[in-house]
Amino acid sequence: MENENKKTNEMPRLRLKLAYVGTQFCGWQIQPGKRTVQGVLKEQIEKVCGVPISIHGAGRTDAGVHAKGQMAHCDIPTSRAKIPWQRALNSLLPPDISILEATIVDDNFHARKDATAKIYSYTLWIEPSYILPQRRPFCWKVGRLDLDIMKKALSLFEGTHDFAAFQNTGTPLKNTTRTIFRAFMTPGSSPQEKIVYFCGDGFLKQMVRNLVGTLVWIGKGKLDIGEIEGLMKKRQRSLLPPTAPPQGLCLEDVLY
Amino acid sequence: MENENKKTNEMPRLRLKLAYVGTQFCGWQIQPGKRTVQGVLKEQIEKVCGVPISIHGAGRTDAGVHAKGQMAHCDIPTSRAKIPWQRALNSLLPPDISILEATIVDDNFHARKDATAKIYSYTLWIEPSYILPQRRPFCWKVGRLDLDIMKKALSLFEGTHDFAAFQNTGTPLKNTTRTIFRAFMTPGSSPQEKIVYFCGDGFLKQMVRNLVGTLVWIGKGKLDIGEIEGLMKKRQRSLLPPTAPPQGLCLEDVLY
Repeated sequence: MENENKKTNEMPRLRLKLAYVGTQFCGWQIQPGKRTVQGVLKEQIEKVCGVPISIHGAGRTDAGVHAKGQMAHCDIPTSRAKIPWQRALNSLLPPDISILEATIVDDNFHARKDATAKIYSYTLWIEPSYILPQRRPFCWKVGRLDLDIMKKALSLFEGTHDFAAFQNTGTPLKNTTRTIFRAFMTPGSSPQEKIVYFCGDGFLKQMVRNLVGTLVWIGKGKLDIGEIEGLMKKRQRSLLPPTAPPQGLCLEDVLY
Repeated sequence: MENENKKTNEMPRLRLKLAYVGTQFCGWQIQPGKRTVQGVLKEQIEKVCGVPISIHGAGRTDAGVHAKGQMAHCDIPTSRAKIPWQRALNSLLPPDISILEATIVDDNFHARKDATAKIYSYTLWIEPSYILPQRRPFCWKVGRLDLDIMKKALSLFEGTHDFAAFQNTGTPLKNTTRTIFRAFMTPGSSPQEKIVYFCGDGFLKQMVRNLVGTLVWIGKGKLDIGEIEGLMKKRQRSLLPPTAPPQGLCLEDVLY
């Protein structure tokens, strides 16, 4: 990883904005023998380039998590710089990934390190009615919720906090403080849906899904909103409600 | 078909409202060796009932066409009348079909014959941008359109007309006159989408897809709106633009 944004030669840097339906992927990150977004993308870019390529994503999405604005970069041979990359890749990629933009950018651009904010959405199916099969891969069915108390809880998440209590086990991080610029709820594409948006400078492992899990417990009256701040200070994941399932989550955009 | 709404015994009649994603089905109607909605439904209902069951749908949807409000009925053994049918079937059916309602109804109810109106939607992806993979199975990507002229064209379709020019070959019908009560366009779930709704007393084979195909040609300036009424009078399918693809179409509701 240490040399990932130093150029050893004059290979042009390609920036990609991509969307995918996460259902049939074992997440973003390449893993041997598994279908991952990074793996499928690398395979097709290498087909065009004829040489091995390293792809750097803005963030790793989990299995089943979707994206409408994932960002990535890779360095390509100079001979491939003028290819119409968006069209070329879209003709090669499977129907569950689309390249929304493909641009040759400055050599110093880094999809992860340069990101100043990420926006995630999480879609809840809030009616007791049976979920539409059209929406099943994109929602968490939770039934009736107290939306007003949830809006109050969302405002408690805003600002700079130690989010250790919302981090799932993984690579241990020294610094678990993050800033959530905005956290709010909007109507969804049907009256049965609500979408929760989080815009922040960075997110810990499964942090959004843990925030949503807690939010839904508050909305169901299983956790008192007054306990949130105290529980956050204890920094213990096990004291907070379970992680929300992956299919409601979508990486909407990465800002630079 | 002749005795389908006469009861030869005292079997209770079950009315079902169902939603499905049409992508993986060869349409509604049962066909040997093919995965159809009617076929999958029949198999599961027979599993619960232990006897052969005939299912009558309000309308046949084509391969790839979706539904959020298809209606059907069937007669079930008296011993199965008190089963919680919605829960039972949803636990047996694959994830691309959901039972939205299941009710024991009057013996005279007939899903097709009693329908007074059907509502279809057709979703268009109108931006030149690449279609999101999340929306690909539910939209026709058409690019920029003149929406104002399309709204005018939609109003020409409203009312009672001979729609022979919008009927694809199939079972020949003596009467090709139908009434469209309302035809209008609304914003979709994302700014790139527009949804066209048709509410009518009945629709000929692929009529909605043929109306949308014509509508899109008008919106693209490939057909003059002034020609529509003359072309309708000629009653010749071949004089009008091609049929729109199935995946944009959804049977939204059947009214009784």
